[in-house]
Amino acid sequence: MKPLKQAIRPTTIVNAARLSKRLGIDLTIASETFQYTGSFKFRAAYNLVINVSQSHIIAASSGNFGQALAYACSLVGKACTVVMPKTSARVKIDAVREFAAEVDLIDVHNTSREQRVAELCRQNPGAYLASAYDDPWVIEGNATLGDELAAFGFDVVVVPVGGGGLASGILLGLRRSGSEAELCLAEPAAANDAALSLKLGYIVKSSTEPQTIADGAKTVSLGERNFAILKNNVSGIIEVTEEAIKQSVRMLYALVNLKAEPTGALSLAAVLTKPELFVGKRVCLVVSGANVDAALYSEIILASNSLW
Amino acid sequence: MKPLKQAIRPTTIVNAARLSKRLGIDLTIASETFQYTGSFKFRAAYNLVINVSQSHIIAASSGNFGQALAYACSLVGKACTVVMPKTSARVKIDAVREFAAEVDLIDVHNTSREQRVAELCRQNPGAYLASAYDDPWVIEGNATLGDELAAFGFDVVVVPVGGGGLASGILLGLRRSGSEAELCLAEPAAANDAALSLKLGYIVKSSTEPQTIADGAKTVSLGERNFAILKNNVSGIIEVTEEAIKQSVRMLYALVNLKAEPTGALSLAAVLTKPELFVGKRVCLVVSGANVDAALYSEIILASNSLW
Repeated sequence: MKPLKQAIRPTTIVNAARLSKRLGIDLTIASETFQYTGSFKFRAAYNLVINVSQSHIIAASSGNFGQALAYACSLVGKACTVVMPKTSARVKIDAVREFAAEVDLIDVHNTSREQRVAELCRQNPGAYLASAYDDPWVIEGNATLGDELAAFGFDVVVVPVGGGGLASGILLGLRRSGSEAELCLAEPAAANDAALSLKLGYIVKSSTEPQTIADGAKTVSLGERNFAILKNNVSGIIEVTEEAIKQSVRMLYALVNLKAEPTGALSLAAVLTKPELFVGKRVCLVVSGANVDAALYSEIILASNSLW
Repeated sequence: MKPLKQAIRPTTIVNAARLSKRLGIDLTIASETFQYTGSFKFRAAYNLVINVSQSHIIAASSGNFGQALAYACSLVGKACTVVMPKTSARVKIDAVREFAAEVDLIDVHNTSREQRVAELCRQNPGAYLASAYDDPWVIEGNATLGDELAAFGFDVVVVPVGGGGLASGILLGLRRSGSEAELCLAEPAAANDAALSLKLGYIVKSSTEPQTIADGAKTVSLGERNFAILKNNVSGIIEVTEEAIKQSVRMLYALVNLKAEPTGALSLAAVLTKPELFVGKRVCLVVSGANVDAALYSEIILASNSLW
């Protein structure tokens, strides 16, 4: 086993003076884009792999969690299998393989991820099946970001939401570290199962994978553990348009010099959508990651928009 | 006069684990891309405006120094005039105007920047004429970055060079803060006046403005104060191709999630060009800024290259 020289990186605080001035709102960015493997997911993955006893971790992920898990496993010498659709972007498959994890490619027309994962678990009874969000180690790993943010005295922390792993973790961390900052969630309107769930008081599942440019928010529902933590404890959840997400990526590029992936820009999109909720407050925007293909990124930053 | 709530931001240390692994070299990035106005130039400009007695600052700059000076002047309530070619990118002109500075547009076919600046100084005898690099306040301002870097124990610090303001400042800061780290300069081969000057022992001037994608290195020569500090005190100067600069911008995008302008990526380009000089050392790459148009940036990150 390799020595554990590596631990999570503290979040990168970026002072967004020009963006704040433009919007008339006091904004500070907590950027997880420079976290190992480029997103907050490494906090979750690393905490998981160092705490579970199993030496083989299995997960289904076409995105940041798979990459983070592969890297975390490589650090501690555990085996890792990541189930991905064979249509996944080459760059994402390569990123997982770069860390010596096994990539298990499936044809989603024939086999669902859940089916394939169940099959792998039967074949590897000693392995640990990791959810990207509905897992206590994952939530606790993400809570380290809440611990860090508690020290800054923000009035409100705005967080992207998909399965709820990051949001529930941050809430846990803020509270256990003594912060009463409000937690505001940011979700694509095209994938608004979390907004519905929080409104109705039970978990609402999308019948199909929602279509949004924010691929980290394509989860069909909040996880049960995540919902239990979040319900009754968030100050609000703001649904944002696809255009607001793209505009946020552009503004982070032009006014903050920050490369963000669409999911990472959801927090700014929430502020653009309901600025009146944030005026006069010390606002922290969590930018959760930056893993985006050059082709998509270029398309977004080259487009112009006159709404903002 | 406004209260001086604002000071320089500490540099942003970015751990480049994936890039380091790819190149087999221990690289840490000191990113000035999140400095106020998006480049190290704010260190220089701010130190200048708070130390000179004059209440009106004049400078010629089509780039980062003009923007930094305009912002610094706005913070302390001083007047600022920035001479720019009327062909400058709209986004750069707007950035200077955003901070309430006067933009003086000239037709470079009829009037040189030097002529226009001299004319403005005659008209405003109480004003201070600021050089972007050959000025003691500018060098001292940039030295604050050297002070910061001294604390990390790097073996070598790699720095982009144009007029030499950043390089001479960092050297000054490193030495006065007790660091014996080597200083290695990175310059476009297409604008290699600094390399020639250091080789020959006197300042070599380009007869025309060099053509390079690294617009911060288009200066025709090192400044006198800068040359005096740098000569005999740098471990080397590496000339890099335009393609190496673009490849460095791409690698910072893809492997570090860092938006950098071409001039900012010169330090990585130097390592790509002569990796053998850096193996086994703790290397700090100074990424000096990130102010680059979306059109040019997209063009660079979308292009592919097989040399590296």
